[in-house]
This record gives sequence, structure tokens and C-alpha cells, in this order.
Amino acid sequence: MTMKDNVAAAKAALSHLDIEEKDVAIKAASRDFFWYSPVLKARLDHVTADFVVRPRSEAEVIEILKTCFAHDCPVTTRGAGTGNYGQAMPLEGGCVMHLRHMDKVKEIHPGRVITEPGVLLKDLDAATKKHSGQELRMFSSTWATATIGGFIAGGSGGVGSCTWGSLRDLGNIIRLRVVTMEAEPRILEFRGDELARVSHAYGTNGIITELEMPLAPAYDWTEMFVATDDFMDAVRFAEDLANQDGILMKLGTVFEAPIAHEYFQRVKPYVQPGTNMIGLMIAPHSMDGFLTFLGRRPEARLIYRSDDNDWERGPGPVFEYGWNHTTLRALKVDPSITYLQVRYGFPNHKALIEKMQAKFSPEILQHLEVLRESGKVMFAGLTLVKFTTEERLDEIIRAHEEAGAMIFNPHRYTLEEGGRQTVDDRQLRFKREADPKGLLNPGKMISWDDPDWSYDRMYAYPKLQPAE
Amino acid sequence: MTMKDNVAAAKAALSHLDIEEKDVAIKAASRDFFWYSPVLKARLDHVTADFVVRPRSEAEVIEILKTCFAHDCPVTTRGAGTGNYGQAMPLEGGCVMHLRHMDKVKEIHPGRVITEPGVLLKDLDAATKKHSGQELRMFSSTWATATIGGFIAGGSGGVGSCTWGSLRDLGNIIRLRVVTMEAEPRILEFRGDELARVSHAYGTNGIITELEMPLAPAYDWTEMFVATDDFMDAVRFAEDLANQDGILMKLGTVFEAPIAHEYFQRVKPYVQPGTNMIGLMIAPHSMDGFLTFLGRRPEARLIYRSDDNDWERGPGPVFEYGWNHTTLRALKVDPSITYLQVRYGFPNHKALIEKMQAKFSPEILQHLEVLRESGKVMFAGLTLVKFTTEERLDEIIRAHEEAGAMIFNPHRYTLEEGGRQTVDDRQLRFKREADPKGLLNPGKMISWDDPDWSYDRMYAYPKLQPAE
Repeated sequence: MTMKDNVAAAKAALSHLDIEEKDVAIKAASRDFFWYSPVLKARLDHVTADFVVRPRSEAEVIEILKTCFAHDCPVTTRGAGTGNYGQAMPLEGGCVMHLRHMDKVKEIHPGRVITEPGVLLKDLDAATKKHSGQELRMFSSTWATATIGGFIAGGSGGVGSCTWGSLRDLGNIIRLRVVTMEAEPRILEFRGDELARVSHAYGTNGIITELEMPLAPAYDWTEMFVATDDFMDAVRFAEDLANQDGILMKLGTVFEAPIAHEYFQRVKPYVQPGTNMIGLMIAPHSMDGFLTFLGRRPEARLIYRSDDNDWERGPGPVFEYGWNHTTLRALKVDPSITYLQVRYGFPNHKALIEKMQAKFSPEILQHLEVLRESGKVMFAGLTLVKFTTEERLDEIIRAHEEAGAMIFNPHRYTLEEGGRQTVDDRQLRFKREADPKGLLNPGKMISWDDPDWSYDRMYAYPKLQPAE
Repeated sequence: MTMKDNVAAAKAALSHLDIEEKDVAIKAASRDFFWYSPVLKARLDHVTADFVVRPRSEAEVIEILKTCFAHDCPVTTRGAGTGNYGQAMPLEGGCVMHLRHMDKVKEIHPGRVITEPGVLLKDLDAATKKHSGQELRMFSSTWATATIGGFIAGGSGGVGSCTWGSLRDLGNIIRLRVVTMEAEPRILEFRGDELARVSHAYGTNGIITELEMPLAPAYDWTEMFVATDDFMDAVRFAEDLANQDGILMKLGTVFEAPIAHEYFQRVKPYVQPGTNMIGLMIAPHSMDGFLTFLGRRPEARLIYRSDDNDWERGPGPVFEYGWNHTTLRALKVDPSITYLQVRYGFPNHKALIEKMQAKFSPEILQHLEVLRESGKVMFAGLTLVKFTTEERLDEIIRAHEEAGAMIFNPHRYTLEEGGRQTVDDRQLRFKREADPKGLLNPGKMISWDDPDWSYDRMYAYPKLQPAE
């Protein structure tokens, strides 16, 4: 592929920085986990950056943005690229800015940490735990490989959200420091309501160079699997446990049968095809309370606990079975599997889940995550779907929406379609200020490209790189 | 008052221990804060122990119980005596066992502490904070003077219950070590469901000699007062804030006007008679989130924050305005004030509160505490009542119950009447094992004294000391 002159000029002007030259590495740095979706895979598989640059400091970020601005070169920013919506993919080519070098943990205080964006969640937790027995309130199931910056720019919640709610909730991000894409990039600090301008914006309207995040105490969480024969028993178990105010939990995941048996290789010897399962992380000092709760539920059997078991091969971290790792594990066994993201809101969550399960199982299998929203325990569904056609997938989505379950479509690469299908005015207004030429992660914000878009079909970015 | 022979014999047999000899000190050690209730004051004011003994160890507790058992001498156990239901008062005289010397904090671990019962809540928090930045999940507003043993034996929740629920909730007590009152006292360890046998049992069926309690991180909580003109605005503010999953709070108290103006001397200069007020404790790293929340509520004004204010005389700890300190402050200004304990359960809590307020204000004034119950934010009412007659008080209580608000009557000295007005079978059954002669804190468990009691009127313990 020939590089356009302006992009080549930007690359040349940045040649004193850490630039990746190998084609295979450039290709790798241009991809995220978009391939969870057959819809995105069909459309984005060929996408690649013209060049990849890895700044070592905020000053270098500024230099890159300033230079690319001058040359009208698109910039798509990424961390580890573990997102699932193509959010880190350079649809138009140009520059991918990889923040892996910016991994310094700057300050740790009681209840908060100040960090650069490129540090892995795992390494950040290790630093805060070592410093003062603290850890992030929540993290994605890609904890071992994902960065904090990518989590904030592309994620919405995760392990810990059963207690703390979602990243967008007040208090779950304290401060973001952001560099704009202008002739003279500005450095801005956002708190409170202003955080919504740039969190979960895929780097479309500014680049996060520093984050201040709240911390919770780090415990040696007891990780468990609990089995039930009846699916709704598993749902009730997870919900009722999460409603125990005195039992501190970090994860509550429900897997409809036969997910555990079919897709979890190391769990398989301990379950039947008909086994429904609950994955849990409970604080060790809450284990007495948990076991008391469990004892009141004869329908539930504890089949694994991380601190006391005789499994020949341990399953590894239980959270690596939850959130989007469920999809990943299923995909590895059955490549036809994809997924949905569903919100089963309080107070109708259980009735909705039961209805969808009855209607679609086993074409779709319920995978639920306990989530707190506005103080109430409800469920997020990361439903497994046996994919047949895009038409059938859309039909399933429509059936959920008609029943009252909100869908965050993971088969779309724009912020709007993956969100509430409406323009986020705060993000759009800020993009006008911070990225006047529209060079940051182009193609991800419909309202910027096409303010009158009607959402009657999947958006296709007109300047998407053509497949060769 | 002449001591009965058996009591005198018990005292003599224990004379090598730390025994209080001064009448005035014996009288003081025989009282708690029962006088918050005019009903209890009229009935218990004369109650006094025959002697007071202060064991220094579990071995001495065992010796005291064994000796008193041999001599049929009643034993009423107390910590600081800050309870409000006469629970630490020796209705029949006999021995008061005061646990003040048993104040050793034994072990501190991540998320839990093992301690003797006689340590002050304040000193326990100081020890765990110094050791590893931890503190109790919840404490009574008498934190500065009350003991952990008294809190567990006589309390139900307090500051922190807005996040962690009540003491009876699974996980909020880990383990209790208990000595029985038998010829040969046994030492028992209780966890899980067994905890309900002795927690909140007023020492009627065993003496707690060691506690294992969960800990939470200790933060330098920002304490605040927020003012509103409309009462229900204050209720909604407190509830909605508590439903913010990402904002960590330890206290949410609502004071109907004119409580703040009439009864809070140091607050008075900053409020009007018509000012409704909310008392708050928010984690410092949640303050940005809190201020964002506040900014969305033009009806609410921040009038005090502990870390930034120009008040000439600071109000002291904000939690010392909440829970039963509200009643205490009101009583000091107006001796005719007493209170109720009301449960406004989810989801009808706000409608009930509004109804009671409309019906009874200003004869009764709403004082509400945000409380979590089964995962839902609701309110406990420690309603201020301008006392006129016992009949009127009963009428007010009945009106609450008829409307659907549960009353825990603080004008009764028995476990049943102050609770759900039913026998707690677990406590009764355990008393048969642990206190076969019924010598522990006699008169506090109706179901022991009179299994067929009908609850149609206030229970009067037949062996209550006669007033002289």
C-alpha cells in the first residue's frame, strides 16, 4: 500500500521518535479484538495503519499531535488493543499512536492513584498493592494484558462493577488529563461532569496522558465456582448474594448450561452439560458470611474455591471466565460464536432474562454479569450467540429491544451504535474544540461525520480504507 | 438496701478481683442511657446493682460466672453503658460485670480485627488505623465512649450502615467467642448463622469475651452539612446520593426543620428555623464525584465541610449529630423530647416518610438515617417526639404501624418489645443451654420469663427491684 504524501511527511517529521517499521508489527498494532464480531470481521479485517509511533512522554504526544495536525494525518490512539469494537483500529489508515511506553505510576495515595495511560491494569494493581494494599475498583477481564488508558477510553465497567457500578458513574474516575489535536495542542484537566467528554470516547476528541483513579482495598479474593441445575436458581443466587450488604464481592457471573461444560476446558471434568454455574470473587473476610449464605441454598453446590480445592489443573483466575473472556473461551471452541451486550435493568431484570432464555436458548446462551446501576443490583448480559447471518443477529437484537432489554451493539464500530444510539452532545461539542480537523480516530463518531444519520442501518464510514 | 445472702456470698467469693465498693460508682455502673425514654425513666431510675466486678481476663469472667452460678446471683454485663433500652441495667440487682479492663486488641489482619470486648470503638479504630489504615465498617454515634462488645451485644447498626447494612447482616460480624453461665462455664465460638444466638442479645445468654470483626479502609472522611428549604428535597438528596455506586459514603442523615436550628447550637448561626439539613461523611477521593452530584441539585446548599470552612466554632464530628446523638442534643435543649425508632422499608420509604411528616410534624420531627437493607437504600427513622403522655406515644406508634412503618420501640427494656415483638427462637433455645438458671441479665427476655406473653401491653418484669 502506498502511503499518501501527507502521511509520509508526518512520519518523516517524527522519525526521531520510536517508530515501528516492520509491516507485520504495524498490522498487529492496527488491530484490536474486533474479530469477536463476524460483522466487524467482515468489514475491518484489512484495516491497517501507515505507521505506528510510540511516544515516551506527554511532550512527545504533543509533538505527534501537532505534527500530524500540520500534515492532516489521522491519529488513532491505542493501548493494548484488547477492545472489541474496532475502537483502536485506524479506519482511514494514517498514524497509530501506541502508548505502551507511557507506563509510569506517578503517585499513590489512600483511595487514589495517579498514573500514565500505558501501564497494564495488572502492573498498576501490583504497584498500588505493594505500596499500600490497594487496587483498582474495577478492571476488564483483560486485566493481564490491557492498559488503564484503553480501559477508560474504550471500556464501560468490568470486574468490580457488581459493587462499584460503571466507569461513567460519579466517583469512578477522578481526573483525566487530555491533550488536544490542534495547531498548538492544549493540555486540559477534566473532573466531574467534564469527564464524560473524553471517557469512553475512543480517543476521538483528545488523548489521555494522565489519569487519577479511585482505589479500593486489595484483598486476596477467594475465587469460586458454584453450580446449580436450574438456570434461574443461578440467577437468583448471584443477585441475592450481591444484595447481601455485608458480603464484599468483586465478581458475580452467571453461565447458562452448557457454557461451563462446552467451553471451559478445565471446568468440564467437574460439571455436567446441564450444569449452570456462577463465578465469584469474595473477600476472604466475607467467606464466613458467604458460606452461611450458601448453606441456606441447598440448590447450589460449591464446586471450586481457589484457596482450597483438589482440582488437578486449576482453572486460573475466575474473572478470566467472566465478562468478555466468556466469549473468547467459547469462540476458541466454536468459531461460530459471537455475542451481544444487553442491559437487564432493575426491577424487571429477572423476568426479562427468563423470557429471553426461554425464547432463544440454545441458539443464544445467557452469560450474565452482576452490575450495580443507580444503587440497584441488576444484570449486564454478554450473551453468547451462535452466529448464522447478520439478518438473524439483527432479528435477535430487535427481539431483545422490543421486550425492553437495552442492547449495546458490539457489532458496530461507532460510539453511537455501540452505545445508546444517540449523539453524545458533550463528546461532539468537545470534539469541535479539541479536534477541529476531525483527525482523531476518524470514522468512530457518526455525529461528527453525518449529523443527520438516521440509524436505520449499520453506519459505513465513507473513508474506510478499501480492502485490497 | 440490704444485700441478699446469696449475693453477698458471691461477692465475698470474688473479693480478690477488682470490685467497686463506692455506692455512687455502683449506682453509675448500674445505669445506661435508658433516660432517653420517659417511659423507661419512670420505671428504671432506681435500679442498682448490689456489687460491680471488673474482670481482667476471660479466666476471671469464667470465675465470676461460675461463682455467681453457684450462688444463684444474677449477672448483668456491661461495657460503657451507652445503650438506650436499659439493656445494661440489673433489673433484679445482683452483680454487674463491667468489661472495661478487657480492652486488648489482639490481632489485626487485612479486612479483620480480633479484639477483646471492652475496648472503646474509638481506641479500636485508632489501633487498626495505625496498624494498616483500616477501621470498623460501622459504629454507633457513641464511638468516643462506647465499647465494641456493648455495640455488638446491644446495637444494631450505625455510622457506616448506609454502605454496609446492619450488624445482623451476614459478614458484618465474623466470629464471637462466648462464655456460658453454668456450673462449669463453657467457651464457645460462633460464626455464620450461630452468631444470631448472642449478637444483640443484651448478654442474656452468654458473655462475649472475644470478637472478630470485618474492617474497611480508614479514610479521612470529609464531613459535611448540606441545607435545603424543602424537607422531601433533603430526603431525596440523601437517598439519591447513597444510590451513587461510585461515591463512597459513611453517613447520610436527614434532619427535618427546625432540628438544626433548635437543637444544634454550633450549627444555629448558619441555618434558619426552616432549614432542613443533611449530615454526610464522604471519602476524600469521592469528593469530586460528590461536588458534581451537588452541582446538579440547585435546591441544596453546602453549608459546612470539615476540610474547608470558616466557622468560628467547628461543630465537631458530624456523626455526633446523627443516630442517637440527635436525640441527645435535642434532649439537652428540650427535656420533653424523646424518640422513636422506625423502619421505612424500600420501596415505599419515601411515601411513608412524607405521610408521617405531614401527619405529625411538628409534634414529631423526622430524623432519618440512610440505611442499606437487602441491597436497597432505605431509611431508619430516629424520630424526635415531643413527649406528652405514654398514651399519646402509643397512639403515635400505632399510627406508624398502621401506615406500614415498622417500629422498634425504644421505650421497652425487653429484647422482644424493642425488636420485632416476637420471640427469637435461636436466642431462647441457646439461653436454655447457656444460662439454665436464667441468671444472665434477668428480665430482658420475655420468652424466657413468660412464654405465653401476649404483647397486648408493656411487659413489666415481676422481679424488678422495687423502688424505695
